[in-house]
Amino acid sequence: MSNTNQIPTSRIEAFSDGVIAIIITVMVFDLKLQEIPTDKTIWKELIKIAPKFISYAISFLTLAIMWVNHHQLFHQIKHTDRKLLWYSIHLLFWMSIVPFGTNFIGANPLLWQASFFYGIIFFMSALSFTMLRNYVIQTNLLHESINKQAHIKIRNKNRIALSIYLLAAFLSLVSVYISFALFLVVPTMYFIPEKITHLEK
Amino acid sequence: MSNTNQIPTSRIEAFSDGVIAIIITVMVFDLKLQEIPTDKTIWKELIKIAPKFISYAISFLTLAIMWVNHHQLFHQIKHTDRKLLWYSIHLLFWMSIVPFGTNFIGANPLLWQASFFYGIIFFMSALSFTMLRNYVIQTNLLHESINKQAHIKIRNKNRIALSIYLLAAFLSLVSVYISFALFLVVPTMYFIPEKITHLEK
Amino acid sequence: MSNTNQIPTSRIEAFSDGVIAIIITVMVFDLKLQEIPTDKTIWKELIKIAPKFISYAISFLTLAIMWVNHHQLFHQIKHTDRKLLWYSIHLLFWMSIVPFGTNFIGANPLLWQASFFYGIIFFMSALSFTMLRNYVIQTNLLHESINKQAHIKIRNKNRIALSIYLLAAFLSLVSVYISFALFLVVPTMYFIPEKITHLEK
Amino acid sequence: MSNTNQIPTSRIEAFSDGVIAIIITVMVFDLKLQEIPTDKTIWKELIKIAPKFISYAISFLTLAIMWVNHHQLFHQIKHTDRKLLWYSIHLLFWMSIVPFGTNFIGANPLLWQASFFYGIIFFMSALSFTMLRNYVIQTNLLHESINKQAHIKIRNKNRIALSIYLLAAFLSLVSVYISFALFLVVPTMYFIPEKITHLEK
Repeated sequence: MSNTNQIPTSRIEAFSDGVIAIIITVMVFDLKLQEIPTDKTIWKELIKIAPKFISYAISFLTLAIMWVNHHQLFHQIKHTDRKLLWYSIHLLFWMSIVPFGTNFIGANPLLWQASFFYGIIFFMSALSFTMLRNYVIQTNLLHESINKQAHIKIRNKNRIALSIYLLAAFLSLVSVYISFALFLVVPTMYFIPEKITHLEK
Repeated sequence: MSNTNQIPTSRIEAFSDGVIAIIITVMVFDLKLQEIPTDKTIWKELIKIAPKFISYAISFLTLAIMWVNHHQLFHQIKHTDRKLLWYSIHLLFWMSIVPFGTNFIGANPLLWQASFFYGIIFFMSALSFTMLRNYVIQTNLLHESINKQAHIKIRNKNRIALSIYLLAAFLSLVSVYISFALFLVVPTMYFIPEKITHLEK
Repeated sequence: MSNTNQIPTSRIEAFSDGVIAIIITVMVFDLKLQEIPTDKTIWKELIKIAPKFISYAISFLTLAIMWVNHHQLFHQIKHTDRKLLWYSIHLLFWMSIVPFGTNFIGANPLLWQASFFYGIIFFMSALSFTMLRNYVIQTNLLHESINKQAHIKIRNKNRIALSIYLLAAFLSLVSVYISFALFLVVPTMYFIPEKITHLEK
Repeated sequence: MSNTNQIPTSRIEAFSDGVIAIIITVMVFDLKLQEIPTDKTIWKELIKIAPKFISYAISFLTLAIMWVNHHQLFHQIKHTDRKLLWYSIHLLFWMSIVPFGTNFIGANPLLWQASFFYGIIFFMSALSFTMLRNYVIQTNLLHESINKQAHIKIRNKNRIALSIYLLAAFLSLVSVYISFALFLVVPTMYFIPEKITHLEK
């Protein structure tokens, strides 16, 4: 098994793409009108699934950010090893729980437990991504030309995201609306600084 | 992140293929007989799911056209960048809502709201595709050998498609049958002119 | 669009793999015990889903044969063009209906209509595969080294399969058990002659 | 068909990745609260789905181990042939039944039949993997540089896993808790020795 270290990253990328594509897409199948509506009840039914649509959109966006970061990270990795496979699978496990959280909060938006679990699932996903990134940096799996400093900067951003998700989970006990706001903060955080980086170049 | 601009398009193509493959396929799981039929009730049950079958076929065809165009566009793109990833994800988001619209119109073909949302979802999908194409043309991500004029021609065809979908959405208030006809016009439009192009060569 | 003809087959292969992987796999989610069983009712519940399991296995096998043939055919194709994409999508459309037929016959094995539609769906899938193969042979998309004679031989085998599926569909009116037997003949036909070919070498 | 033997493994790897990604992910859609909970009933509902979550996690882990081994094995295979395709499809068939077993044991953790089928399904999956590995070793499909001895070592580990799954299936008649323990032994077995291998280097 001495040549295990030279395995290219192509297959773990393809497998991750497959898993993330399924997670991100199949959630939409919860978006269904449960009663057969008539012309009179249709708007009431549509309003009833509005929270499901919003939670779908937030989960889609959050998972898409993870995919973009995964894409960027793996583009910079020289080759894979057995441990990297397992760090990736660990990440995919927590990402695969997102549809459960999305369904839970979409069906019961005002229950604090829904926001709590939704926050915890995102926290665990972000944590396993940070663990994956740390492993890659520590074991020198990055291409030599890659600026490690940039990755440490991203890691710091990850840590803020982690804190926000944990905060969102526990502040659901105070008010679920605080949690909702915090779930939107992380995607915003990932979009805005990128713009600044582009300006700096 | 200076080498971000040299990322090949292979992974965004693979991810898009995965997402589109799931969207296009999993819709078929709504095609189920809801009651356990007997020899007497079976035809009544089958006729009941006929609108679901028709809406599945139209959605399959429309999504397939988008995939073919996506395939053709990305074949001509030199490399990807972060913004192109997000234009693609934006397109995939709207395409991922298609199964909701398909289920809605398949279960309630005569409700104008179903045709309205079906039209709006296709409009948003086509709009996000046009935005993706515009970005690619404007930022010179196309291979040098590619005729930009051809893309501008396609963009004009896209604009007609956009108008038809918007028209289909709002004319559902007059009659859903007008909307049904318009949902079939766009696929026809994409098939017939292609033939003419082939003859011109 | 003059370089459209030089598009490699990699992406249509990847997309087909994705669609077929979903079709072949997601059917298993109909294999569910509908009532929560107790120690006493469990065997009755398990026997009730036995036809679903058998229809799943037959569909899995038939789709797997199609995938193997698709794999082999595309390995021998030089490059793709727009028409080949559409012949492939046409094939995928009919293959995507297989889960509907599988669910139908699994839930109502003794209704002749179930066997009828199951047969028709397989007939249409096999027909669209034959159309794809014919197009490839006629337009010289095959690598020069490939023996066209071998493909014509396979086409003849396809024609027998087509006749069997059509026969299975219509003989369901006489007895569904004749149809069941015929559904098993085609996979057997594809396995046994292959062995003979291997012996001939 | 003389060049069939030179077919690269890329497409069977991609197809397997697709199928395994779907199997491993879509199971999560059984993780749903069945009743709409209130603030009072929510914990009772969450506890009710705890066995589903545990069985999901075990299945995810077991399938992930199989994927890692599949990844490693195929990385070392020179090229594919028709028989290798069918050994792979045989493996995928049994892996595709795992969601049925997971749903069964998650919904009825204390029924011995659930543990019995769960064990049998894992046994058949492991058996078909061993058959695939044996075929690869016997027909010299491995790269010359690969140590066959290492594969024979792994095969022995596979045989222990096979015995454990068979034991787990039949000991469910004595106590399902013995089966639960045994389902956890195999993943542990695959993780711990790997660590020792790493230390030996």
